[in-house]
Amino acid sequence: MAMYAVSRRLSISGGSAIGALRYFTTTVLKPLPTSFREERDTFGPILVPSDKFVVGAQTQRSLQNFDIGGDRERMPEPIIRAFGILKRCAAKVNMEYGLDPMIAKAIMQAAQEVAEGKLNDHFPLVVWQTGSGTQSNMNANEVIANRAAEILGHKRGEKVVHPNDHVNRSQSSNDTFPTVMHIAAAMEINSRLIPNLKYLHTSLNSKSVEFKDIVKIGRTHTQDATPLTLGQEFSGYSTQVKYGIDRVFCTLPRMYQLAQGGTAVGTGLNTKKGFDVKIAAAVAEETNLPFVTAENKFEALAAHDAFVETSGALNTIAASLMKIANDIRLLGSGPRCGLGELILPENEPGSSIMPGKVNPTQCEALTMVCAQVMGNHVAITIGGSNGHFELNVYKPLIASGLLHSVRLLGDASASFEKNCVRGIQANRERISKLLHESLMLVTSLNPKIGYDNAAAVAKKAHKEGSTLKEAALNLGVLTSEEFDTLVVPEKMIGPSD
Amino acid sequence: MAMYAVSRRLSISGGSAIGALRYFTTTVLKPLPTSFREERDTFGPILVPSDKFVVGAQTQRSLQNFDIGGDRERMPEPIIRAFGILKRCAAKVNMEYGLDPMIAKAIMQAAQEVAEGKLNDHFPLVVWQTGSGTQSNMNANEVIANRAAEILGHKRGEKVVHPNDHVNRSQSSNDTFPTVMHIAAAMEINSRLIPNLKYLHTSLNSKSVEFKDIVKIGRTHTQDATPLTLGQEFSGYSTQVKYGIDRVFCTLPRMYQLAQGGTAVGTGLNTKKGFDVKIAAAVAEETNLPFVTAENKFEALAAHDAFVETSGALNTIAASLMKIANDIRLLGSGPRCGLGELILPENEPGSSIMPGKVNPTQCEALTMVCAQVMGNHVAITIGGSNGHFELNVYKPLIASGLLHSVRLLGDASASFEKNCVRGIQANRERISKLLHESLMLVTSLNPKIGYDNAAAVAKKAHKEGSTLKEAALNLGVLTSEEFDTLVVPEKMIGPSD
Amino acid sequence: MAMYAVSRRLSISGGSAIGALRYFTTTVLKPLPTSFREERDTFGPILVPSDKFVVGAQTQRSLQNFDIGGDRERMPEPIIRAFGILKRCAAKVNMEYGLDPMIAKAIMQAAQEVAEGKLNDHFPLVVWQTGSGTQSNMNANEVIANRAAEILGHKRGEKVVHPNDHVNRSQSSNDTFPTVMHIAAAMEINSRLIPNLKYLHTSLNSKSVEFKDIVKIGRTHTQDATPLTLGQEFSGYSTQVKYGIDRVFCTLPRMYQLAQGGTAVGTGLNTKKGFDVKIAAAVAEETNLPFVTAENKFEALAAHDAFVETSGALNTIAASLMKIANDIRLLGSGPRCGLGELILPENEPGSSIMPGKVNPTQCEALTMVCAQVMGNHVAITIGGSNGHFELNVYKPLIASGLLHSVRLLGDASASFEKNCVRGIQANRERISKLLHESLMLVTSLNPKIGYDNAAAVAKKAHKEGSTLKEAALNLGVLTSEEFDTLVVPEKMIGPSD
Amino acid sequence: MAMYAVSRRLSISGGSAIGALRYFTTTVLKPLPTSFREERDTFGPILVPSDKFVVGAQTQRSLQNFDIGGDRERMPEPIIRAFGILKRCAAKVNMEYGLDPMIAKAIMQAAQEVAEGKLNDHFPLVVWQTGSGTQSNMNANEVIANRAAEILGHKRGEKVVHPNDHVNRSQSSNDTFPTVMHIAAAMEINSRLIPNLKYLHTSLNSKSVEFKDIVKIGRTHTQDATPLTLGQEFSGYSTQVKYGIDRVFCTLPRMYQLAQGGTAVGTGLNTKKGFDVKIAAAVAEETNLPFVTAENKFEALAAHDAFVETSGALNTIAASLMKIANDIRLLGSGPRCGLGELILPENEPGSSIMPGKVNPTQCEALTMVCAQVMGNHVAITIGGSNGHFELNVYKPLIASGLLHSVRLLGDASASFEKNCVRGIQANRERISKLLHESLMLVTSLNPKIGYDNAAAVAKKAHKEGSTLKEAALNLGVLTSEEFDTLVVPEKMIGPSD
Repeated sequence: MAMYAVSRRLSISGGSAIGALRYFTTTVLKPLPTSFREERDTFGPILVPSDKFVVGAQTQRSLQNFDIGGDRERMPEPIIRAFGILKRCAAKVNMEYGLDPMIAKAIMQAAQEVAEGKLNDHFPLVVWQTGSGTQSNMNANEVIANRAAEILGHKRGEKVVHPNDHVNRSQSSNDTFPTVMHIAAAMEINSRLIPNLKYLHTSLNSKSVEFKDIVKIGRTHTQDATPLTLGQEFSGYSTQVKYGIDRVFCTLPRMYQLAQGGTAVGTGLNTKKGFDVKIAAAVAEETNLPFVTAENKFEALAAHDAFVETSGALNTIAASLMKIANDIRLLGSGPRCGLGELILPENEPGSSIMPGKVNPTQCEALTMVCAQVMGNHVAITIGGSNGHFELNVYKPLIASGLLHSVRLLGDASASFEKNCVRGIQANRERISKLLHESLMLVTSLNPKIGYDNAAAVAKKAHKEGSTLKEAALNLGVLTSEEFDTLVVPEKMIGPSD
Repeated sequence: MAMYAVSRRLSISGGSAIGALRYFTTTVLKPLPTSFREERDTFGPILVPSDKFVVGAQTQRSLQNFDIGGDRERMPEPIIRAFGILKRCAAKVNMEYGLDPMIAKAIMQAAQEVAEGKLNDHFPLVVWQTGSGTQSNMNANEVIANRAAEILGHKRGEKVVHPNDHVNRSQSSNDTFPTVMHIAAAMEINSRLIPNLKYLHTSLNSKSVEFKDIVKIGRTHTQDATPLTLGQEFSGYSTQVKYGIDRVFCTLPRMYQLAQGGTAVGTGLNTKKGFDVKIAAAVAEETNLPFVTAENKFEALAAHDAFVETSGALNTIAASLMKIANDIRLLGSGPRCGLGELILPENEPGSSIMPGKVNPTQCEALTMVCAQVMGNHVAITIGGSNGHFELNVYKPLIASGLLHSVRLLGDASASFEKNCVRGIQANRERISKLLHESLMLVTSLNPKIGYDNAAAVAKKAHKEGSTLKEAALNLGVLTSEEFDTLVVPEKMIGPSD
Repeated sequence: MAMYAVSRRLSISGGSAIGALRYFTTTVLKPLPTSFREERDTFGPILVPSDKFVVGAQTQRSLQNFDIGGDRERMPEPIIRAFGILKRCAAKVNMEYGLDPMIAKAIMQAAQEVAEGKLNDHFPLVVWQTGSGTQSNMNANEVIANRAAEILGHKRGEKVVHPNDHVNRSQSSNDTFPTVMHIAAAMEINSRLIPNLKYLHTSLNSKSVEFKDIVKIGRTHTQDATPLTLGQEFSGYSTQVKYGIDRVFCTLPRMYQLAQGGTAVGTGLNTKKGFDVKIAAAVAEETNLPFVTAENKFEALAAHDAFVETSGALNTIAASLMKIANDIRLLGSGPRCGLGELILPENEPGSSIMPGKVNPTQCEALTMVCAQVMGNHVAITIGGSNGHFELNVYKPLIASGLLHSVRLLGDASASFEKNCVRGIQANRERISKLLHESLMLVTSLNPKIGYDNAAAVAKKAHKEGSTLKEAALNLGVLTSEEFDTLVVPEKMIGPSD
Repeated sequence: MAMYAVSRRLSISGGSAIGALRYFTTTVLKPLPTSFREERDTFGPILVPSDKFVVGAQTQRSLQNFDIGGDRERMPEPIIRAFGILKRCAAKVNMEYGLDPMIAKAIMQAAQEVAEGKLNDHFPLVVWQTGSGTQSNMNANEVIANRAAEILGHKRGEKVVHPNDHVNRSQSSNDTFPTVMHIAAAMEINSRLIPNLKYLHTSLNSKSVEFKDIVKIGRTHTQDATPLTLGQEFSGYSTQVKYGIDRVFCTLPRMYQLAQGGTAVGTGLNTKKGFDVKIAAAVAEETNLPFVTAENKFEALAAHDAFVETSGALNTIAASLMKIANDIRLLGSGPRCGLGELILPENEPGSSIMPGKVNPTQCEALTMVCAQVMGNHVAITIGGSNGHFELNVYKPLIASGLLHSVRLLGDASASFEKNCVRGIQANRERISKLLHESLMLVTSLNPKIGYDNAAAVAKKAHKEGSTLKEAALNLGVLTSEEFDTLVVPEKMIGPSD
């Protein structure tokens, strides 16, 4: 019965019944809501499910009109939480400009719940909606207004707290959405990405120290080259991650600029002088991050260069981590037929019968993440380059792409550190064996026996598959003691005095 | 108490308590399971939640070791369903090779439930796992084995149906995962993408016919150019979509090749001669799609060029749709200060006070989708180019990227068709006004009044902001009737005889 | 004196002296021209150097206005040559429509010289010009008109053959440039890319046959896996290249469609009925390729999806070749501390003292090319997606990007084939040693001594670094003869009967 | 005769005659050299053309082995010049470490000529060579050694100055090539990119000031929105470019780190303590840029994250410039049927008969450049992510890609500034007309006549195609004077007090 009513209503208001039901029927396991209530907007009445009491007409229309991608494409949680932070701060600042304190405080409490993720379920909209994110802003306004009304003791649907007039006061979707983009990105970067990269850096650095005396063969062009220590090799990785952190930090000054106060086109029409500065200060206080109001609001609405830039830093980190993970899995290849210099931690069964087969699964997850970050970077770049006039309308794509990359890089770095790097051991025996079998060490003989003899030794060893020492002794150009005195890889790992 | 036990167990087996709890605590709204049962694999015992009765030890280890991205990063549903199809077919074929029919039939029934999406909740693993997808294959084996055992009347955990020996018989993760990749992609393309592109093509084509007599100004370099009909303009869009469908079809012959039968490295060790052909036939029958066994199994495991290729076709479609959507929003810009030649359907309130402000939100969603598809294409290309030796280990990334692109393009095409293209109207008045104000029509006067006079007319009109006709009459080079006879845009829309 | 005149003139006509001189002064080695002649267009007079006698006013303006990138950014030669072909065919067809045969034949002769590359030096314009390629079309018209006039015995600058009225007759830049794009791309693909890919395929295939009996260790996840033959491994590579050729062929039907006849906006205004079909036929005859007139000229001018599509095929080939080249350099790593299964040809000194250090430089050049092709693909995709209305104005970028990719892939495939693949030798001794040291072979013992004993053998061998055989004999579970009978890798390279 | 000799020789030494001739026969216009001389390296004798007197054996082998892409793919000139700088500095520092001053000074003089571009013609090698750039380093060593010998009065080919022992002393290709990469990039960025971006910024800023009082309609979602000034709109563009400059500067600290002193694998073997610091200081002095020795040489050889990072900044600038150029061409669209708010400078004939048709060709060139920069960024990212062990072997690709992007962005910014931005005029009449026709201004009436009446006015105007004023007067809700007092767009361009 209820279902029939929905269909009829919806076809009247332009949507289709099939679209309307998406929200409830995406998976077979979700129960259908048993009742609906009527909400209205300027387009007329629309039915919304009663159990989603805080979702209003505009949100419901978006659900029907943008049936794209399904539930896993919902607006990312950090955006939802940032809406909570922003709306809380807006209510606080609006009190200074005359908003009724009772309403303001109810809004602040409701917004706090959004910021804490308690009302996530009431944000069903997907990323693929209007390019300004207007619908998610309205979703936030509707949820907070209805919840605030409830806090004030009113029933659902009674608009005692108005989504637009109260919750969205002095704001426009066009400045709130870029503001929450920046808040969400800055918070995720500071709380998830940077700490995990620091752990990874520390762990790689510890390995660099732990392995500082292990001399090993170097490899250039994938070919045997002069030696270095395993610690030196890891110091390169550790430096890459350290610089990666620097790279992200370099981009943050522009990420800390908030568009709020620009309203519809950047001029600040319908807001008050000083509102922009006050709201940035409030957000800074709330988040403990150095947000400021954007120097130029036109740029802040019409472009998202700050996101393209930060994504570029993430892309660089992805390139670094791909290199590191590739090296580690190749150095850990084997157990018998690979390079075998590293022993990677065994986190899951590699082979039930073959001991030592440890698949470098953490390297695999990490390098897949890196590829995705590189792909997201292209998507963000394309979205960022395609703004028109006063408004870039690829905002949800750009926001979701960057947050995806931040989340994946942060999580994968933590996983890689915890489940791989931390437990890496050097296979000292194998490293030493390879080093001493290498023909590269022949260069140490030059001063003593001359270039021609040294070359002859190497050629003989190569041809016969023997060690250099065997070849040298065999050719009679050196004694065993002389060879051991001369061929000391430990002396080949730095410049001479 | 149960929680404590988990922590202790897990720290023994190498994981950490924090990781272990992820599965249960990602969102505040999910209830914690109240009990656990012990599962074992070659690594020893591990606790799994009792309510996820069909998930075994290997799946649980993966959850702990790959805490990356959260729930929305789960292996895409079409992969899960394809596992159901494949395992069902494998059991059927294995019966021919001696698998106990009672067990085989139970597996087939359980696999059918997976294929129907009924057991989705039991596939918690994320994309960012081992690059061979082994863990998702084991997840499928474990779920199906346990469910099959239940079907046969046994209790959870009793391994009467063995995940490896029975469900995974004659298979390896290394051939099953690429097989389900191909099944899932081919099915999604055929059931979601192609039909929706066809609807879009039909709709654009209808518009092309509907608008065939509306002559309008052409624009090149964004500047006024010679006229064409609005129908001709839409015929270009329609052709782009038609070719897009052709492009995807061209790639399918390689997508229909299945790796199954290659087992671990492509040789088919541990499987029987003919198994590969039979299983491809069974999958073809089950899906009604022309799957065949891959001509070369080494290529089929070590590379995913077929996915890079198909993603290239999707990338081309994304380029087409971005062009079309951009044109439509610009042609629909206004209502007063834009081009205003098209009237787009109004799906949600654009402005509460300003009639005619219709934001082209469907164009925005679609172009965002196109940018994401282009980004995914880069990720897929990078993953595809990075295989090592006998196995490409970017499989989950590649699969999930392509399925993401297919889903987004398919859904967004449908949404764009239904909520935008279908309802587009020509603003005939505006189109006619612009056309007749244009200076381009002056070229029609050349034969009658000569190049110099024609140029003088145009210059005068440009300078004074008048129409060509006004300028011509004013200069006295033509009568009103002569002008009307000569300047007939309808005669400028094709080659001459 | 002449220089002074140029400066003055140019500043009058809006350019700057500095820009004007670029053409002559880019490199220190080019002599300055000693004299100039005056050319005119609708903008007024402009000086052009006398030694570039066939370059007219519009070309010279473009040089001044687009001082971007320098000489190496000139419009690619295949585009210039395709202009020669097209203009020759246009003159021929225009004769049928009334063009004076004397003029037509002179144009045909001049155009032939352009097609043969004889007048390349007279095409100085860079890619980064107007997005329709208009200036290069005018460059071609001017060169051919002046050269044709010369052929007819006239002096330079006398416009007896008119660039627009005669050479460009019935054409517009908007249809000629896309036409030459398609001609150039199709010719380069057929004459350079496909043959070289075929050579590479043949060579890889020969190696697959040559190595068909060499059993070697397989590697998955970079870890030791079950064996296969080296021939099987190469058959995977060979299949990848074969499919790559198929992929390009699949895209050609849309590349063979020519825009000519669409003129300015696709309607064919100012051309005659049938011109489009005749000119496509003439080009087909001239090139011996199956060109046809484009089914929809609006699509052919406003979009370049055919280029995005073909670039996608090249991108797939790049992914394939990167995989192959990576494998080959890793399999050839060493000589002592790598995998060392392949011996790559030594084309240049690797190390003056260390024999056997062969840097895989051909793999390096090829993989760099692959990365560039992937990058070009993104550029082409972005350009392709950004058309506006009746004309895509990223034509030179798209054309130059695709031709760059075709040239690089074609040349690099040839180089890789000739200087690397052809000379690859198997290091049979090393391959055999690794295979027999591997622990993977333990699985062959299961049937005889049971899983537990087999696992014990493997564990002992792993722990002690011994061979399986040593461990087995040591544990007393098998005799030497039994071991040799059971452990036969040659029996592990295919499915069982 | 000479030719025959080459062929024979070359086929002996493994190359083919066809490859060998490439250098001379690429274009039909280059004369064949008439004589050859024999050079040798460790591979034996090889013929080189006598007129390229300073090119030695290793360079010639590279030409034969890497016949990829043709002349326009030569190693970029800034790399060649940076080799001159580096080799000059190396000789100077090597004097301190005992290099014969006579030889050192001759090297310094020869290197100076390379730095000045005087010997460019002697650097024929292409980018697509060995991934370490070894061959270009040897090319530089050979050219400088031979030229230095000549300076010292010796004949060509006499190795009185040795390419390796003298010119390359204390260096390895593995540290020199990354060093010249950084020198070249930093110099090009500082001398070409930054200045041109600054010009562009200044020019956009001037326009922002010039247009500060021109109130115009704003556009969001491409739809009419609330007003802003044209100056405000340009201030957004100007801010984008300003931040772009900041972005590049942020990346330079890592670009100023030089790898020199790391030699083959980063350890500094075969160089002296302090050499790295001294050479960085010498380069800093020579170039007047703050180069320092790299903190970690292992990172500096094995990865090129600094290039990926800087390329990310360029990619962001490309996104900015694409947005700006797109806006400008759309705002300048017309002359009659577009937005027409801007009048762009007319640099070349748009249409011979239609005045006012100004194709935005500078926007087109710039946006094509932006697309290429985005593509190059992907290529650089892929190359940067693919290093193996101690050496990234995508160096020439990475270097050439970044230098290409820097050159294109720098040149195109200059061209766009000079030939477009500088000459942009506001079409005040058109801007005013659109603004006052807009329905957006109705919001100003709310306070006076109420929301319902205001909406009625707007609806009437929209329906009848009249102005708001006409509708208001017609409805009798306001007098003409009242309307003019209330509807003042100039009051809508900022926040209220």
